[in-house]
Amino acid sequence: MLLSGGEKLERLRDGRRVYIGAEAIGDVTRHPAFRGGAETVAALYDFKAEPARRETLTFEEEGERYSLYWLRCRSRDDLARRMRALKAIAEFTYGMFGRSPDHVAGMVTGLAMNPSVLENLHPGFGDNLVHYYDYARRNDIYLCFATIPPTGLRSAELFPGQERDDPSLRVVDEDDSGVIISGMKMLATGAVYADEVWIGNLTPIDEKFKKESITCALPLNTAGMSLWSRQPYGQHARHEADYPLSYRFDESDSVLVCERVKVPWERVFLHNNGDMSRRIYIQTPANCYANHQSNVRFWTKMGLIVGLASRICQANGIDKIPAVRETLGRLAALEATIGGMINGQIESWEEWPAGYATPNRRFMYASLNWCQEHHTEIVDILRALLGGVPLQMPASVDVLSDADLRSRFERWWATPSMDALPRMKLYKLAWDLVGSEFAGRHMLYEKFYAGNSIVVRNQSDREAPWEQFHGTVDRLLENIAEPVFNSDKAQT
Amino acid sequence: MLLSGGEKLERLRDGRRVYIGAEAIGDVTRHPAFRGGAETVAALYDFKAEPARRETLTFEEEGERYSLYWLRCRSRDDLARRMRALKAIAEFTYGMFGRSPDHVAGMVTGLAMNPSVLENLHPGFGDNLVHYYDYARRNDIYLCFATIPPTGLRSAELFPGQERDDPSLRVVDEDDSGVIISGMKMLATGAVYADEVWIGNLTPIDEKFKKESITCALPLNTAGMSLWSRQPYGQHARHEADYPLSYRFDESDSVLVCERVKVPWERVFLHNNGDMSRRIYIQTPANCYANHQSNVRFWTKMGLIVGLASRICQANGIDKIPAVRETLGRLAALEATIGGMINGQIESWEEWPAGYATPNRRFMYASLNWCQEHHTEIVDILRALLGGVPLQMPASVDVLSDADLRSRFERWWATPSMDALPRMKLYKLAWDLVGSEFAGRHMLYEKFYAGNSIVVRNQSDREAPWEQFHGTVDRLLENIAEPVFNSDKAQT
Amino acid sequence: MLLSGGEKLERLRDGRRVYIGAEAIGDVTRHPAFRGGAETVAALYDFKAEPARRETLTFEEEGERYSLYWLRCRSRDDLARRMRALKAIAEFTYGMFGRSPDHVAGMVTGLAMNPSVLENLHPGFGDNLVHYYDYARRNDIYLCFATIPPTGLRSAELFPGQERDDPSLRVVDEDDSGVIISGMKMLATGAVYADEVWIGNLTPIDEKFKKESITCALPLNTAGMSLWSRQPYGQHARHEADYPLSYRFDESDSVLVCERVKVPWERVFLHNNGDMSRRIYIQTPANCYANHQSNVRFWTKMGLIVGLASRICQANGIDKIPAVRETLGRLAALEATIGGMINGQIESWEEWPAGYATPNRRFMYASLNWCQEHHTEIVDILRALLGGVPLQMPASVDVLSDADLRSRFERWWATPSMDALPRMKLYKLAWDLVGSEFAGRHMLYEKFYAGNSIVVRNQSDREAPWEQFHGTVDRLLENIAEPVFNSDKAQT
Amino acid sequence: MLLSGGEKLERLRDGRRVYIGAEAIGDVTRHPAFRGGAETVAALYDFKAEPARRETLTFEEEGERYSLYWLRCRSRDDLARRMRALKAIAEFTYGMFGRSPDHVAGMVTGLAMNPSVLENLHPGFGDNLVHYYDYARRNDIYLCFATIPPTGLRSAELFPGQERDDPSLRVVDEDDSGVIISGMKMLATGAVYADEVWIGNLTPIDEKFKKESITCALPLNTAGMSLWSRQPYGQHARHEADYPLSYRFDESDSVLVCERVKVPWERVFLHNNGDMSRRIYIQTPANCYANHQSNVRFWTKMGLIVGLASRICQANGIDKIPAVRETLGRLAALEATIGGMINGQIESWEEWPAGYATPNRRFMYASLNWCQEHHTEIVDILRALLGGVPLQMPASVDVLSDADLRSRFERWWATPSMDALPRMKLYKLAWDLVGSEFAGRHMLYEKFYAGNSIVVRNQSDREAPWEQFHGTVDRLLENIAEPVFNSDKAQT
Repeated sequence: MLLSGGEKLERLRDGRRVYIGAEAIGDVTRHPAFRGGAETVAALYDFKAEPARRETLTFEEEGERYSLYWLRCRSRDDLARRMRALKAIAEFTYGMFGRSPDHVAGMVTGLAMNPSVLENLHPGFGDNLVHYYDYARRNDIYLCFATIPPTGLRSAELFPGQERDDPSLRVVDEDDSGVIISGMKMLATGAVYADEVWIGNLTPIDEKFKKESITCALPLNTAGMSLWSRQPYGQHARHEADYPLSYRFDESDSVLVCERVKVPWERVFLHNNGDMSRRIYIQTPANCYANHQSNVRFWTKMGLIVGLASRICQANGIDKIPAVRETLGRLAALEATIGGMINGQIESWEEWPAGYATPNRRFMYASLNWCQEHHTEIVDILRALLGGVPLQMPASVDVLSDADLRSRFERWWATPSMDALPRMKLYKLAWDLVGSEFAGRHMLYEKFYAGNSIVVRNQSDREAPWEQFHGTVDRLLENIAEPVFNSDKAQT
Repeated sequence: MLLSGGEKLERLRDGRRVYIGAEAIGDVTRHPAFRGGAETVAALYDFKAEPARRETLTFEEEGERYSLYWLRCRSRDDLARRMRALKAIAEFTYGMFGRSPDHVAGMVTGLAMNPSVLENLHPGFGDNLVHYYDYARRNDIYLCFATIPPTGLRSAELFPGQERDDPSLRVVDEDDSGVIISGMKMLATGAVYADEVWIGNLTPIDEKFKKESITCALPLNTAGMSLWSRQPYGQHARHEADYPLSYRFDESDSVLVCERVKVPWERVFLHNNGDMSRRIYIQTPANCYANHQSNVRFWTKMGLIVGLASRICQANGIDKIPAVRETLGRLAALEATIGGMINGQIESWEEWPAGYATPNRRFMYASLNWCQEHHTEIVDILRALLGGVPLQMPASVDVLSDADLRSRFERWWATPSMDALPRMKLYKLAWDLVGSEFAGRHMLYEKFYAGNSIVVRNQSDREAPWEQFHGTVDRLLENIAEPVFNSDKAQT
Repeated sequence: MLLSGGEKLERLRDGRRVYIGAEAIGDVTRHPAFRGGAETVAALYDFKAEPARRETLTFEEEGERYSLYWLRCRSRDDLARRMRALKAIAEFTYGMFGRSPDHVAGMVTGLAMNPSVLENLHPGFGDNLVHYYDYARRNDIYLCFATIPPTGLRSAELFPGQERDDPSLRVVDEDDSGVIISGMKMLATGAVYADEVWIGNLTPIDEKFKKESITCALPLNTAGMSLWSRQPYGQHARHEADYPLSYRFDESDSVLVCERVKVPWERVFLHNNGDMSRRIYIQTPANCYANHQSNVRFWTKMGLIVGLASRICQANGIDKIPAVRETLGRLAALEATIGGMINGQIESWEEWPAGYATPNRRFMYASLNWCQEHHTEIVDILRALLGGVPLQMPASVDVLSDADLRSRFERWWATPSMDALPRMKLYKLAWDLVGSEFAGRHMLYEKFYAGNSIVVRNQSDREAPWEQFHGTVDRLLENIAEPVFNSDKAQT
Repeated sequence: MLLSGGEKLERLRDGRRVYIGAEAIGDVTRHPAFRGGAETVAALYDFKAEPARRETLTFEEEGERYSLYWLRCRSRDDLARRMRALKAIAEFTYGMFGRSPDHVAGMVTGLAMNPSVLENLHPGFGDNLVHYYDYARRNDIYLCFATIPPTGLRSAELFPGQERDDPSLRVVDEDDSGVIISGMKMLATGAVYADEVWIGNLTPIDEKFKKESITCALPLNTAGMSLWSRQPYGQHARHEADYPLSYRFDESDSVLVCERVKVPWERVFLHNNGDMSRRIYIQTPANCYANHQSNVRFWTKMGLIVGLASRICQANGIDKIPAVRETLGRLAALEATIGGMINGQIESWEEWPAGYATPNRRFMYASLNWCQEHHTEIVDILRALLGGVPLQMPASVDVLSDADLRSRFERWWATPSMDALPRMKLYKLAWDLVGSEFAGRHMLYEKFYAGNSIVVRNQSDREAPWEQFHGTVDRLLENIAEPVFNSDKAQT
């Protein structure tokens, strides 16, 4: 089933509890803080459902049509097809939505390619997963996740034996019908616009905290659940043109707060297993499918950045300077770098698990590392090309609303090659990529969406073929001729 | 004369025209967009006027007491004293105000150390400068400047002979009483809070546009003058604790717009000389004095960043990890790097011009280059230490206003070592340095306040002792023994 | 035909003139400066000819068997097969031979995929190329090239009209049988071990110097030709173990000097066309095929570096430290980065020219850029992991030749986990990658083998789909809602 | 007493045992591997003794004249004077000798400014130090040091209770006349040319290995002592012009090997104190004085690099290109950066210990960090400016010895602005800074001479005024206004 945008908006009016500071938001689709994002998500559903994009964005299985990101690939062609769908979705938000519906869907799809990993831990849980996978794709669910414990030390560790409140989400009770969970989980990006939330763990859980290992999925209006949002960035924008990205592409980040929330057993996928709660994503294609989407999304963002850099250089009248052309050529090379690495994941795909196809994991983790290493520098290059011009623009496009100011603005802010208004829109857009709070959040997001650099690089360490690398060195060393000394020579 | 903060605020209610987009601001001291900054400036005046800081922040000349930044140094001790005053002022805003009152004052003081440069260009203009210097320090004037033409090509160049509107500020008329100027000038940082604006040129002016070379100073409420502000960053902050820096330390940036503004001759310092309009700052200590203040201000900001990095690592519970300690040690080394370079400017001071003392120019330009090269990386290090925690904080401290939310917040956002509110304040502060729009503007500011990297490095190129450097190479090459060949040897 | 190593060595005894400074080398296969390299080349020929590697390293066409690098690919599978062959050859020298026989062969093969580019410039020249391609592969020719003019200004430009000696290689005479060339050409890497040299131009030639555009191929013993070698790096190594890479993998670099060298017409491929002399490589797959080999070769070298970094960390006893593991993980990610990009070139192959297959050019140029940008840093990481240990090793493994020294060496230079000799060999190998003159030449080579950064990035600029990038920006800007002001609203 | 160069050479013929691999060197002043370095050291002694440099390079105390680097400074002026002397000595070797006679002398001088640190550990040892300080300066001793244990795990730790050979130098016996030491110590730079060696520890020693803490000084010809040199880099240079730096400025590195070497008590300064064996350098100005010399030496090297970069750009004909000028300006700024930091150490000198003057320690450690962080990049910039030209030069200047080759060389290797021979010398010099083995060793040396980055940055961590940094943050946080909520407002 493919939902329309209107249906998607309707779904969001489900009684969920969202707070901006102390303010409780009644209807996220109409509140100025979230309206723009909600419209973008709705438009994406319409985009996806359009018959003309049927082949690109959906697939059929047993007579039913699903969004393509639920496809369990069986071949290189499947992987290529899936990647093109992810690219089209990413382009819809210019790479600004990190957790668009295809991200967590990829993770669940990866689990569904090898449910025995869950089933072996606890009979029935693998089936739960498969049923949930089927439910989610059948209902065109937008799924987000919350998979990190709150930062800071645990009180349970520091005050042993005491009855204390511990903010880490965990199971506090269970009975025949399910488990009860309480606590916080970080950081549910996109939750304001999603339908359901996947609760789980991407960081290791010590066995003594195994109650935190609970892995489940719930609708976002479940009783006892609330979302504590960080400041939404489009909230105070007077006009879309003032902050074009903040206005429409702020995907939202929220802390998930649960107070005695009931999870029925059929929505539980793992329980009481600290060690495996993180490893299920690595022992199945889950982690790879989800992060492959991140790679593709970053690639798409690079396309916007490179294009913007070029347009800015034209607007600043510096695009013919050799040193600037070298910089633009370099940016184009960087765009092709991530593009090449993504295509390489497909060329070197792995048949894993048996019968299924997964993008090359080492190349995927290398791409993650590349994105993390380069984003700050890439934005800094754009900043350097931009110069101080964004600060020279009026505070708002509303200068046009005053005849007198408008007249001066149109005369003096124009350049021979560009009228004042399009010029202002261009710089406002650039500012929203390098300087606004939306931009500031992206700087943090790109550095941490897959964990910090230790996490990201350790994944490359874990997957590296060290024996092969060592073998190369050892072969070279072994082939070195034994030294022959004159005295030895004399003997022969 | 030393003004009190209250007197300073009163002065700002002078009828100046300031626009935020289409909104005309009546009283900058009371409008939510500027109130916080105005209070900071007023508090700085009180700080400066306090008798206990008499020795540190003021000096006496001919029976009158002035702010120390007007001191024309005559010795190393004077330079050291002046530097300490700049440091105290920078610390008052934690290095967040780039164009605090001591910046442009330093430039004017530098000109006043060699007014003959102006006098030689046009009899009387040197005297005008000396009188203005005296007027400004006597009245404790906060002076800002606007010294860059609007970005983009000039219409005058593209449409020769046509009567067109050209936005570059220039003289459009003159008579016995003075000149009339029209056009825009970029980017009057601090103008909203300053008393007067220095109009001049820090970029080269072609001789055919010599009417743009006009160098003068005017009160900010002069008829025909208006300030077009960029978006003020504290405007929408609900509470100071939500955006502690934006709220209080947004120094403002405005485009200066002049429409047939009259400048009396006594306020004109240079006229009709494109070449010299920029070089007067290099041929006097003006550029060095002004940028020395920038160095000191950046040093101060580094102190905040290093302290914050350490506090954040403590709050994140990572401050004992060896790799983190290495990073903190590196940040401390970077703070000492800029500190060392500033002290080196004093140790290697130059007697220039005759009878006066100027910080070592090469070391000052090297410091400028260092700041420009390193700011992005320094903030990125802080960002990496910070992690995603800022996004995990509630949108506003106003969660405390709701008893129910407050209770959950205080229980769950606390860590064993830190209560919830101080923890939130710490991360909000950090966010205001790395992620908010205020932070985004600082990223741009630190990259461009002294011009782009070509400008900054060319100053180091210009001042470099190339003959000495070449001499070293040539001496080495000359000392290489002539090759002696066997045949030669045979002959001897 | 596939040559044996012995036959290859025999071929090198062809009377070629090679100078090391003033010393004329009689037989490059036996002189200590070149012997090690010659043996490596011979061993590579044996490796290639071995029946077991028939499928990997050769292909059949019209009943004849050729080295695989002469394959004109017609499909993705061909490209993948070709890449595997290049990888195997690169692994034979651990990525140390930049201009192994597959490099220039790739370039010629690229030209042979579209000889009409040459034929259209001059009837017959395209045929010459096809014949030469056939001759070269049929005779298992090791081809090097010399394609850069001598650095420095041209005397012809500075002394117009004068009869002066100009060192740039050019045609000085021609008749029915061919042309006569004189002058120098830079920098014939591998020439000491190659059979023939391709003379051409990879930098633009001004039309007024069109006589320099001559593009041809000649045996290296042609009368009038000589090679002026830079210092060979294995020349003074007492034992292979002292400098394991210098000893065996110094591929040689020489200036090609021609004095009235005769080129028969059938060996001429382009003449008197400055503009096209460089563009023939871009208008055919020549440039892409040749540089694709460079990518693969660099990837192979990365494998050695990563393995060596790991072995060094083990030897230094630091491989368990978390910060070191992060570094090793990062190195593994970098190895996968270039690997991913190369595979991406195949996944996104282009059918170009019609009927043939070429690796994706943008991804190939992006790979070139990546290698150029990262090599210094990669070696620096290895250097940092290595520490000062290489300098703590005895100067030569010949310490073993003295019983007394040997005894102390074996007791004291051993560590609990490693005997003294293998430990010394490991560090000597590492030193040959980061510190020896061989290493120093590699630092320069990796920075410049495809031209400087301007050249490399401009290729990415040239190939970039700017319209597509601009289209993205323009679409975003066009979709921004027109601002609606209150007064407007009032009207509706 | 100031020694002449001839006397210094005579002293080196003292029967010391130096090995290059298995070769025992009889007279280091005449062997091709060391002759060039020995001449440089001798010339430095003559330079220092010249009457015209009396004021710059020597000082008088109680009627005796000493080399200035033995000066215990008592004022800023003393520090400035001392720095000028270090600069003059560094310039004599163009910054190529890291451990010139002023380095370890500075360390001993620092200890002699507070001998109570040693005396308090063991009565008499402080006096020993003062006597040794006096002996060394009185005899114009060139002192080197060996202060690092051999890399790799200790056998004593792994095979407890077993009688095994442990290579770490330690006391193996002691009696009334002194102690007996055996084992190896890394890495005695300059030892081949020095008179005596200081044995001690710059890394921490665990208390259970306290016998390794021995700190003493001995002549290099002491019985039982030998130097195991790494490969000397000038050994195979045919002519000085081929490797101008290797030939004359290879300061040598050797492992110090001691086999039951006797140390009389008067030469013992610390014994059986693992903890303090390293801290004596930090609790006195020893570490600061020694590393201040390193800073000055690096600054001097920067002068050569900047000059060479400029000369190379001129020779390559690119010195007028704007992007190249920006690079040269940047290099000049970097030279001024380290210069500024050194001068800042003097401006902010510390009176420590009482009555004495020490360069500012934080600025000194920041300078160390700066040098370590930037050297690779600086050399890489030079490499990028250089291009492939060094490899285009003939292998040796001996091409001039053959009339025929010479004629071609002089005609074709010249450029209009430069004759062939000076051009070759310039590029050979540049190669010796970026590509030769001598250059490779410098790359390692600059990265490690003060320890790895953890060591260097931890020194900055240790000396950082964390309370002051934290105070800044805390003050800012405390000044944030308490949030006032509407309900609160209502109450008031």
